[in-house]
Amino acid sequence: MEDFRIEHDSMGDVHVPAAAKWRAQTQRAVENFPISGRGLEPAHIAALGLIKAVAAEVNGELGVLDPGLAEAISEAATDVAEGEWNDEFPVDVFQTGSGTSSNMNANEVIATLAEKRLGRPVHPNDHVNASQSSNDVFPTSIHVAAMVDVFYELVPALEHLAVSLRQKADVFGKTVKAGRTHLMDATPVTLGQEFGGYATQVENGIARLRSTLPRLAELPLGGTAVGTGINTPPGFARKVIEKLREATELPFTEARDHFEAQGARDALVELSGQLRVIAVSLNKIANDLRWMGSGPRAGLGELNLPDLQPGSSIMPGKVNPVIPEAVCMVAAQVIGNDAAVTFAGASGTFELNVMMPVIARNVLESTRLLAGVSRLLADKCVHRLTANTERLREYAESSPSIVTPLNRHVGYEEAAAIAKQALKERKTIKQVVIERGHVESGKLTEPQLDALLDVLSMTTPPEPPKPSDD
Amino acid sequence: MEDFRIEHDSMGDVHVPAAAKWRAQTQRAVENFPISGRGLEPAHIAALGLIKAVAAEVNGELGVLDPGLAEAISEAATDVAEGEWNDEFPVDVFQTGSGTSSNMNANEVIATLAEKRLGRPVHPNDHVNASQSSNDVFPTSIHVAAMVDVFYELVPALEHLAVSLRQKADVFGKTVKAGRTHLMDATPVTLGQEFGGYATQVENGIARLRSTLPRLAELPLGGTAVGTGINTPPGFARKVIEKLREATELPFTEARDHFEAQGARDALVELSGQLRVIAVSLNKIANDLRWMGSGPRAGLGELNLPDLQPGSSIMPGKVNPVIPEAVCMVAAQVIGNDAAVTFAGASGTFELNVMMPVIARNVLESTRLLAGVSRLLADKCVHRLTANTERLREYAESSPSIVTPLNRHVGYEEAAAIAKQALKERKTIKQVVIERGHVESGKLTEPQLDALLDVLSMTTPPEPPKPSDD
Amino acid sequence: MEDFRIEHDSMGDVHVPAAAKWRAQTQRAVENFPISGRGLEPAHIAALGLIKAVAAEVNGELGVLDPGLAEAISEAATDVAEGEWNDEFPVDVFQTGSGTSSNMNANEVIATLAEKRLGRPVHPNDHVNASQSSNDVFPTSIHVAAMVDVFYELVPALEHLAVSLRQKADVFGKTVKAGRTHLMDATPVTLGQEFGGYATQVENGIARLRSTLPRLAELPLGGTAVGTGINTPPGFARKVIEKLREATELPFTEARDHFEAQGARDALVELSGQLRVIAVSLNKIANDLRWMGSGPRAGLGELNLPDLQPGSSIMPGKVNPVIPEAVCMVAAQVIGNDAAVTFAGASGTFELNVMMPVIARNVLESTRLLAGVSRLLADKCVHRLTANTERLREYAESSPSIVTPLNRHVGYEEAAAIAKQALKERKTIKQVVIERGHVESGKLTEPQLDALLDVLSMTTPPEPPKPSDD
Amino acid sequence: MEDFRIEHDSMGDVHVPAAAKWRAQTQRAVENFPISGRGLEPAHIAALGLIKAVAAEVNGELGVLDPGLAEAISEAATDVAEGEWNDEFPVDVFQTGSGTSSNMNANEVIATLAEKRLGRPVHPNDHVNASQSSNDVFPTSIHVAAMVDVFYELVPALEHLAVSLRQKADVFGKTVKAGRTHLMDATPVTLGQEFGGYATQVENGIARLRSTLPRLAELPLGGTAVGTGINTPPGFARKVIEKLREATELPFTEARDHFEAQGARDALVELSGQLRVIAVSLNKIANDLRWMGSGPRAGLGELNLPDLQPGSSIMPGKVNPVIPEAVCMVAAQVIGNDAAVTFAGASGTFELNVMMPVIARNVLESTRLLAGVSRLLADKCVHRLTANTERLREYAESSPSIVTPLNRHVGYEEAAAIAKQALKERKTIKQVVIERGHVESGKLTEPQLDALLDVLSMTTPPEPPKPSDD
Repeated sequence: MEDFRIEHDSMGDVHVPAAAKWRAQTQRAVENFPISGRGLEPAHIAALGLIKAVAAEVNGELGVLDPGLAEAISEAATDVAEGEWNDEFPVDVFQTGSGTSSNMNANEVIATLAEKRLGRPVHPNDHVNASQSSNDVFPTSIHVAAMVDVFYELVPALEHLAVSLRQKADVFGKTVKAGRTHLMDATPVTLGQEFGGYATQVENGIARLRSTLPRLAELPLGGTAVGTGINTPPGFARKVIEKLREATELPFTEARDHFEAQGARDALVELSGQLRVIAVSLNKIANDLRWMGSGPRAGLGELNLPDLQPGSSIMPGKVNPVIPEAVCMVAAQVIGNDAAVTFAGASGTFELNVMMPVIARNVLESTRLLAGVSRLLADKCVHRLTANTERLREYAESSPSIVTPLNRHVGYEEAAAIAKQALKERKTIKQVVIERGHVESGKLTEPQLDALLDVLSMTTPPEPPKPSDD
Repeated sequence: MEDFRIEHDSMGDVHVPAAAKWRAQTQRAVENFPISGRGLEPAHIAALGLIKAVAAEVNGELGVLDPGLAEAISEAATDVAEGEWNDEFPVDVFQTGSGTSSNMNANEVIATLAEKRLGRPVHPNDHVNASQSSNDVFPTSIHVAAMVDVFYELVPALEHLAVSLRQKADVFGKTVKAGRTHLMDATPVTLGQEFGGYATQVENGIARLRSTLPRLAELPLGGTAVGTGINTPPGFARKVIEKLREATELPFTEARDHFEAQGARDALVELSGQLRVIAVSLNKIANDLRWMGSGPRAGLGELNLPDLQPGSSIMPGKVNPVIPEAVCMVAAQVIGNDAAVTFAGASGTFELNVMMPVIARNVLESTRLLAGVSRLLADKCVHRLTANTERLREYAESSPSIVTPLNRHVGYEEAAAIAKQALKERKTIKQVVIERGHVESGKLTEPQLDALLDVLSMTTPPEPPKPSDD
Repeated sequence: MEDFRIEHDSMGDVHVPAAAKWRAQTQRAVENFPISGRGLEPAHIAALGLIKAVAAEVNGELGVLDPGLAEAISEAATDVAEGEWNDEFPVDVFQTGSGTSSNMNANEVIATLAEKRLGRPVHPNDHVNASQSSNDVFPTSIHVAAMVDVFYELVPALEHLAVSLRQKADVFGKTVKAGRTHLMDATPVTLGQEFGGYATQVENGIARLRSTLPRLAELPLGGTAVGTGINTPPGFARKVIEKLREATELPFTEARDHFEAQGARDALVELSGQLRVIAVSLNKIANDLRWMGSGPRAGLGELNLPDLQPGSSIMPGKVNPVIPEAVCMVAAQVIGNDAAVTFAGASGTFELNVMMPVIARNVLESTRLLAGVSRLLADKCVHRLTANTERLREYAESSPSIVTPLNRHVGYEEAAAIAKQALKERKTIKQVVIERGHVESGKLTEPQLDALLDVLSMTTPPEPPKPSDD
Repeated sequence: MEDFRIEHDSMGDVHVPAAAKWRAQTQRAVENFPISGRGLEPAHIAALGLIKAVAAEVNGELGVLDPGLAEAISEAATDVAEGEWNDEFPVDVFQTGSGTSSNMNANEVIATLAEKRLGRPVHPNDHVNASQSSNDVFPTSIHVAAMVDVFYELVPALEHLAVSLRQKADVFGKTVKAGRTHLMDATPVTLGQEFGGYATQVENGIARLRSTLPRLAELPLGGTAVGTGINTPPGFARKVIEKLREATELPFTEARDHFEAQGARDALVELSGQLRVIAVSLNKIANDLRWMGSGPRAGLGELNLPDLQPGSSIMPGKVNPVIPEAVCMVAAQVIGNDAAVTFAGASGTFELNVMMPVIARNVLESTRLLAGVSRLLADKCVHRLTANTERLREYAESSPSIVTPLNRHVGYEEAAAIAKQALKERKTIKQVVIERGHVESGKLTEPQLDALLDVLSMTTPPEPPKPSDD
């Protein structure tokens, strides 16, 4: 039988496991919300801890707390921020929509830890939560966690992937292949051009994340209960945010409008939307890769993806594009998580959006999944794949669309007739052009024809695209 | 430093933690997919274990495995089915899209456990996976897990909630209140009628789940690699499914079309859609409840929801509708999970949908979340709420829409004029009817008027609705 | 300058175009909602007209309206039901969430038309809308329109498509091809098995639509304002619904719970979910088709899809899989429409869901799009496509996975080694088996080997799947 | 019987209605795609026309077309851009995924119109489409249409709405009301603070749209068939885009990476995501407004929304919040459209995303709907609403949360006890504070108490929020 101690809060007494650092309100929440079995994301707990730590410092500076108390709280909260007490956060992520239960969980654990250091009572509300409210601290903690995860996890992972793709774009710069539009043979491109396109998609994803900064970096802190800042001393939020900036080296600002900042969670819906664009980009890239790697004999067989594990429990020797598949599954999840965030973001009323924990879960999970899978895609797939250069060129040269450069010389309709005849009679475009008398008639010389039909030169744009400045 | 042993598979040697029950392919997958940190849902592992257990029995009966081997595998797999070895399933849910890694994880763990019992080598592929392929076993395991969770967890939870709502519908059968359409005062209803409507929504949800049975109960087993049933002995799938029916008391059938059953995961998309309708229903109910409980003084104040925990870390004495909020957050998540399932379900190609683990995760999580939160809604909210009968009647009587029964006596336009005057002059409808001479003129007698304006009688439909038979 | 006449309603006078059949409330709505430029779907107007027609008949039978008036309204409404007056329905679909504006539009147009027949005043509310409310009539009209469209348009279109796919399944019954899982070469299947799988998906879609009947066929009619049936005479709804059943030969029933039936629109969310499964099925089929038709030279080149139009404005002779693409775009739209329906369905409050017009638009459009594109897919693609039988067999025979039947003879690992060697050394499986001494050793005879490696026989399941009875 | 003429294209002869300006390929597409009955959005046709006009000019300047031909095409295309020939665009939006049919529709109509001006044959491909491909022109036309609609329709509409909300924020600057979090009574705010928050949400929406510019303004033009720019003369795209910039005064640039620009449509997925955030914002605002306007007697009754039309066909005198409802329905649609765009955006392969028309439809419709409904919300709702100042103050003063400022004087738990007692005994907070002896004890003086409990002063943040500079 487990040991219990009695704790109490403004609603009365509660039995709490004897060893737990948490207290009455956490315990109520544990009992009230046995739903998913999962708590806040670790990054989220860390953000709460960090905020509590610097808030205590500022409360000390402003005289709200005495220096010893402030220091004890700050140190205890720092331990939480460093992930030492994650097991003491048992509250389910599906809980009260304001995250009050998790905020109180943090307040209580930190109070207990600080009390131990200090040797005198520390109150979760009056001391740890001083100058704060769940309603400003909790959304602040989501923004802080999201900023940290986006800019210290996801952006570097995407940069890593982009570099990996660019390297392959260089390697494959002269590897000519059949372009494909509508999945049908089109005029040639180089494999390098395709990989360059992928790299640009990923780089644009980084730019998309950065574009959210003016809104994502805004913190609701200082609004307390309803945005008015009741019960918080002048200067509190400004100072706390300054310390957050220093601690994280991220450009946090105080919300320009504290009523928007608590009544809505639009900036997280926006972030989620950008995460989803990245998912869409990665899904496209992964699909192309696995199609190019399809085969070995009944598929396109253009790329060799690395063999990472046996592919089938029944078909011996089969190797599957498992990393691209994982990418596509992450894409599906991020698209799903985004739908959850949208619904939740649209459900705010009056002074508070009370769908915050579910927003946090989905935004932070999406960020984490995208970061993880981007690194894998770079390291376990892109970096190690090779091209079947011969097959690629063979395809390029056999595509009837290489007739396209002849449009200007023989007209679109005659060119179409040439392509169709070549296909039907299994001849090369060149053969058919000659057969139909275009060389004889002097419309084209044979060297001209050879030059026009050179697949690699068809991949060179007539002029380098100008860099645009955004 | 951790101890390792060397294992090998068809691709070569692998270092596996010495204590692990898993082997080479699991280990490769652990290293290949460090993505989400979460593995299969426990219900999913249990389903895999159950299938492996009965498959071994059938392999024994059919002579594919010798009796001792079959028995050892079956017993080991049963232990897995009972959740004893969940920690030996370390493979991330974001993995190869066929779930091969998790199928091999099951095969390897069971092989190790069976080997120990038997005292001689057991091969994960040749023995545990005999007559099977990931491509038929893995989707089968999702259907089995979903059926078990839906019919042994979610349906009972919804039944419990429906009973709880029906009980309140009885209790509140005569509690008259203002109807609200467009949030505006409408003609009266009883609170019991509203709760009855909620109960019907929940009961319809159960019917929706049942309506998926003809397709959800179909198992791909027997199709092996690509639906043709290559390498599986005649009768294998039929016998296994019969044993699954017995073990679970659920009406499993063999897929009528094994190519549909492996190429598509439509039945899970369908199930996810029905889970989402339930989420939509619960969201509506939860919203109504929290609005009726709003206040205590600046809201509607019609219901008293139970006080479960202090509501604010800053506003003393505040109590919030935390269970309805958790319901709404679950609704958001289920809607999001459903979007992930839809995307994944649409992404199949040729003989296999390779987005299966992400489909499984989302369908099973949604089921679990809805079951959990439905029980909470019943036990911690509906069961314990009470009505402010007086306030409810007051609202009902003050609604200008109670003029509606007069339409037939004075016409729609005069009735509108009466309602507007009553509102403007803060008078009752009765007062204004008399003032405008409708009694004097003999159009209505005062007792008639009183009868027409009786709010409770306005809630009684002119005839009982006929039960329809579906 | 346009001519106007003055109309009035309970709020005062309104200028209405002289020629318009509509009156004051329609005109207000036209001015209030200049949003999308689109009104109700024609099928929706037809349903409204039909309901008004039979409601007038019943009002006549019950003595609510005098016989001449009832007849005039019924005839006028029938004209509306037949689509003769669609131009008189100018109200935007984005309007009041109850659809009151469109209900009044119907009431007003019918009143005007009836007045002309009758030669005496007909009142939109007191006469045409007698015994009804927007709150029961409008949702009833959505259900009626959806039932008609689903069962008279979409189901027949899906049946047509299924027949077309089954025919091809027969034709291609012996056309062996490489199976593909993960896009990688797998054991063989027949093209007929694939097309059979598609047909089953489509047939299951029909079953999914039918499974919604018990809830979709329920009509809110009779609930009037808030579900209580205020101001409607006993028997009204029952009689109207009986006439609707007769007129449409569809099994409409009166809502078992009028409060559920008006407070929620769950049955339409459910229908939308099933439409979405159909979209998912069609997307899979269309994707397979276009991949099999890819090429002609740098793709799979397994199928010849019919040439419907020139494929490129620049690449002569290019022909694209335009019908499968249209299918995929419809799938995307249906998935999007479904998300709109979900959001709207979750947004009901108290006695009425006031997101009805947007639900109607999306459900009815999805139904119409799926019906249209299913017929096209059958007639312009499936019906006319042909197979490249030789190429298909070539692929089947070159797939290294045809080693699979040897598992039982040489073990999974040796089989894997054979497959890899064959691939690396560009030899056939048979060659490598012999080279590795399996025939010499007597493990296998050459005829046995030939039998085992026959690709067509690999496609025959060891036993016919038993038909399950659902 | 309709008259026909014979046209032909590279696939043969086609019957075209005699009066039609379009030709063979349009006609084929009309027959191939009878799906939705709707063509491209008018803004999209206009963009196509504009591009064709300036492309012809540049083709003239570069010597690709002779000056007379170039001028004739340019003038004809300008007429198309001005919407004069929208009826000549009969091709369904659900068509080939590259939009080739609509591009050819434009080419053909313009060829016919130019031919008439010029008096000699004009070829749709060789002349009107010169230097272009559907694959670069069509996505360019979507970006151009989206930029025009976003920056000339939606942004001004949002600015208009923001101004309207700011004006009300000023008017209501001192109108104190009960704050509400979790729908429960919280500490006071002013109605002006709420409206200011709404304005900020809308203004942030504008910033979100602007943040997409670096990617949305990039045009694929110049990539032609597959991104390589085959068959387009050097300088063509640059010159065309310069003219587009001049014509529209929008900062268009040439795609930095033409392979990304044709292989992906990520920038439109991004735009759609931002449109969706705006939908989420408006949904929140509309919901708050209709709840504050609920009643008149059984709701909150805080705001009077303007009466725009009779609200019920059965309940006389009822007036509903029809504009907020339309806003919520638009929000649902935009969320749905966004899901369609996401699915379509994720479905690109290799050198071309072939889900473009459905992306265009949804992005452009969402833009148009949001613009339309934002103007309505401003003009027909926000601008004309008034506040029930007395009721608002009454609520503010009766909220038990006004005890919050006493936390620092009596502690959180005693404050909670005061609030609960006040509520239970239906007393004011002040009464209970005095009763519990806090004044007698000298902890607080009565004037202090009055100052602390003044609701308006509770709404003033302790310091003005600092404007942050992004």
